[in-house]
Amino acid sequence: MFGTMQDWPLLVWRLIDHAAAWHPRREIVSLTCEGDEHRSDWLTVRDRARQVAAALRGLGIQPGERLATLAWNSYRHIECWYGISGMGAVAHTINPRLFEDQIVYIANHAEDRVLFLDLTFLPLVERLAPRLQTVETYVLLTDRAHMPAASGLDLLCYEEMIAGQPVDQPWADLPETAPAGLCYTSGTTGNPKGVQYSHRSNVLHAMAACMTDTFGLSATSVVMPIVPMYHANAWSVPYTAAAAGAKLVMAGPHFDPPTLQRLIIQEKVDLALAVPTIWLGMLQHLETAGGGLGALTRTAIGGSAVPRSMIEQFDRLYGVRVVQLWGMTEMSPLGTTGAATPETRAMGYSEELNYRVKQGRGMFGVEMRIVDDAGALLPHDGERFGRLMVRGPWVVGSYFKGDGGDILDGEGWFDTGDVATIDRLGFMQLVDRSKDVIKSGGEWISSIALENAAVGAPGVAEAAVIGVPHPRWGERPLLLVRARDGATVTRKAVLDFLDGKVARWWLPDDVLVVDTLPHTATGKLLKTELRERYRDHVLPTP
Amino acid sequence: MFGTMQDWPLLVWRLIDHAAAWHPRREIVSLTCEGDEHRSDWLTVRDRARQVAAALRGLGIQPGERLATLAWNSYRHIECWYGISGMGAVAHTINPRLFEDQIVYIANHAEDRVLFLDLTFLPLVERLAPRLQTVETYVLLTDRAHMPAASGLDLLCYEEMIAGQPVDQPWADLPETAPAGLCYTSGTTGNPKGVQYSHRSNVLHAMAACMTDTFGLSATSVVMPIVPMYHANAWSVPYTAAAAGAKLVMAGPHFDPPTLQRLIIQEKVDLALAVPTIWLGMLQHLETAGGGLGALTRTAIGGSAVPRSMIEQFDRLYGVRVVQLWGMTEMSPLGTTGAATPETRAMGYSEELNYRVKQGRGMFGVEMRIVDDAGALLPHDGERFGRLMVRGPWVVGSYFKGDGGDILDGEGWFDTGDVATIDRLGFMQLVDRSKDVIKSGGEWISSIALENAAVGAPGVAEAAVIGVPHPRWGERPLLLVRARDGATVTRKAVLDFLDGKVARWWLPDDVLVVDTLPHTATGKLLKTELRERYRDHVLPTP
Repeated sequence: MFGTMQDWPLLVWRLIDHAAAWHPRREIVSLTCEGDEHRSDWLTVRDRARQVAAALRGLGIQPGERLATLAWNSYRHIECWYGISGMGAVAHTINPRLFEDQIVYIANHAEDRVLFLDLTFLPLVERLAPRLQTVETYVLLTDRAHMPAASGLDLLCYEEMIAGQPVDQPWADLPETAPAGLCYTSGTTGNPKGVQYSHRSNVLHAMAACMTDTFGLSATSVVMPIVPMYHANAWSVPYTAAAAGAKLVMAGPHFDPPTLQRLIIQEKVDLALAVPTIWLGMLQHLETAGGGLGALTRTAIGGSAVPRSMIEQFDRLYGVRVVQLWGMTEMSPLGTTGAATPETRAMGYSEELNYRVKQGRGMFGVEMRIVDDAGALLPHDGERFGRLMVRGPWVVGSYFKGDGGDILDGEGWFDTGDVATIDRLGFMQLVDRSKDVIKSGGEWISSIALENAAVGAPGVAEAAVIGVPHPRWGERPLLLVRARDGATVTRKAVLDFLDGKVARWWLPDDVLVVDTLPHTATGKLLKTELRERYRDHVLPTP
Repeated sequence: MFGTMQDWPLLVWRLIDHAAAWHPRREIVSLTCEGDEHRSDWLTVRDRARQVAAALRGLGIQPGERLATLAWNSYRHIECWYGISGMGAVAHTINPRLFEDQIVYIANHAEDRVLFLDLTFLPLVERLAPRLQTVETYVLLTDRAHMPAASGLDLLCYEEMIAGQPVDQPWADLPETAPAGLCYTSGTTGNPKGVQYSHRSNVLHAMAACMTDTFGLSATSVVMPIVPMYHANAWSVPYTAAAAGAKLVMAGPHFDPPTLQRLIIQEKVDLALAVPTIWLGMLQHLETAGGGLGALTRTAIGGSAVPRSMIEQFDRLYGVRVVQLWGMTEMSPLGTTGAATPETRAMGYSEELNYRVKQGRGMFGVEMRIVDDAGALLPHDGERFGRLMVRGPWVVGSYFKGDGGDILDGEGWFDTGDVATIDRLGFMQLVDRSKDVIKSGGEWISSIALENAAVGAPGVAEAAVIGVPHPRWGERPLLLVRARDGATVTRKAVLDFLDGKVARWWLPDDVLVVDTLPHTATGKLLKTELRERYRDHVLPTP
């Protein structure tokens, strides 16, 4: 016996037990899909989560089994998360925006035994149920009064299921590497792959996300995750808010700017988290409707790059500081933070913005590097770009059921599939996806940089750049543009516009004006289809 | 293969590797005992720590062995910490303020093979060396120019030892439960006992300490640990500053207010950490010298209770927010934070102060409860007090070499030896040490509360309260007072003063005026000796 520290496994239920013990009456406010504004608190939600756990044990659920949710952000969804993982099972969040075939695929692949669903999704689930091979129990997240008069499904009523269940049964005693959650990537190629989070990875990720340069949460924070719980764990807010004892505000099924604005002002939200699309809508709404954003002082934005103009508008019009975050489902999801450093803080506003539009530096717990195709390390000069590799305790080690085989390299690095630069101040900036980058004569061309430049051309509504085979250079860029309604766009006009805006050798070899461009279920350009369609395209010889 | 997250052990060297990767040029400023003001940065200190590790491997040091430091806060001490634990050995910080016999005892008990020492401590070490049974190598933390012309010891020069050592050898690959540090308690009874920190406990503790309601460290922070690294890990600042990428400022051997003030202002320190005694001196100095505290906005204070007047002075005169922390060597050391909650923030200033003088609520990772002598849970009413029990991943599980035997109860709780209340807002307040509390007729009387009241009596310089045996009540309080120079204090005057200030049944049964009171090496009242001295004292019958 040589002296030890205590054995205290990092388990997800410790987060909500902490909140219930030290912040029992801190509020959890939810707009529900039944239409009410529901007020609860950490102690009540913890006790109800214990009732969920007890009910699941009563249904014969075993540790390690997957139970799915199809639900908006709300107190009941949080109770399910903690209740499921707290009794040792795995909370599988299904993204309702996926194609129906994908939803069926992942529910069957995960072998979900129970499906918790919000009223909103009842028609969808009734339609899909005949194809869900493993779901035995459907639980409607509502009370008796809102249960449908008739349904093709044998539905359990959530409130009835948990009513009378004990609140004092202990949580599951598990090793911290036990699985706690499951989320599938919305891959653009092949079937979605599952990332199974462990108790340990979720707790460590939450502790890191609480730090000042990420969420900076305290017991006096009022935090609103607009990002949905079915989208990469709502960036861990249901966990971080519990760890910090913060007040939690959720808009349920509502994503419209007036409702979000009203809730932010009414509940004195000081940190709200959402993807850029949500904020674009909000800023447009505020411009005409006015009324401001109440006590909001910070917003954390991720999911796609934050436009410079958005950061400026938040600063100048609303006094709201934007912190850009980057991550992915495979990273729980957080990897970087764009928070200020002494170096960026000392810059003039315009120069500082050059850094704030970047995705930022690694959080403690995330190792990050960029390498070329041969695996050689690239310099942090902000110019050279390479494959972005990550390593850390909340980074995926293998996909669920081993899909995709070995996904780490010999040194344990996971290839994010992104191409990025890192500058001398340590700020990482995404340049492209590695499958989309155009490899021309041993050098890489960013399809995204070309697209961003091309959408500035007069009359262009949308642009896509793909690489097409080239006998001498290997690949050369082909630009596809869709014109705005009524506008006329020509190859020559676009090329003339680009000339001088990108490196000469980046200029597309051809420009095609098309009527439509294909997209994935979640709105991303479907470049696989474009590459297939244009792989025999003959580039004009100059 | 069911899908995993990465295996990434929580190792202390990851903290400084993180700082070196993303905050390489963030400064580390040290006043040294050689008299210079030294400027370094995280990358340089990391590389030199790697050289320390290489040099130690060259000396034949094996993982798990203990190497001691007797040093002030400085970049070299930090290099030693990371270098020692980074090669798998255990960094044992020795408190130079202990009695010499205690220093000899703990160095022998720890079986320290190497002793790193600052110049300041050379006379001490030369005196003790003949009694140090296991130390093979003495390393003086200085360069050739400052090496003594002659010494009874065979001294290595630190700068020469690391010069030319490689900086690119990998750190030790260890399980996260491997030991990283060792610190002995300055127990008032028996021999000091060692607390051996693991890599895991140090990293988790640092992550929690970084959170907003504890240190709230960011990359833009400038943090100055005045609390020494030999005192409970300098409250983890050498770890937390690395995790956050903060600038680190250290005053080395200097604890005088003018030097601390100058450094705080010059380096734009925004968070400084120290025990109340240091700040008492600083506030007195500022009152006459003026000049303020520069960019300081927050101070974290622990080690003993923070006087209400100190919080008020910092607020009103300097705009510095005091956050009270509580912990102990056995807790790495942090356990609670007195940071604001929405409830305290909504109070008037005076009412809020009633909470800010308390030690605060548990951090995430620290479970805490109060129980009576029978182990029954006591209510959180702010009135009832009981034994304070803690549990968590950075709480000791057993002392080094098993000293003291099983120290956890059947449910894994560690008895802090403190007696405390917890109020309905979750704020814990220390009432007494459990060995000092007076147990009178089944009820507990706080010796500290009586002492605090008694020192308010006219002419009283110091007060000590102990329990003495009583045939009917078990124990009753005896108050010992030392008078101020020239003052006359009487039993009756003190009892009259106390009447109405404490509960009637708390009133001491006797008051003795004494010439001196005994203290420990670190200045605490030595109540064991007083109890021994007065155990046959016959209390007057009323």
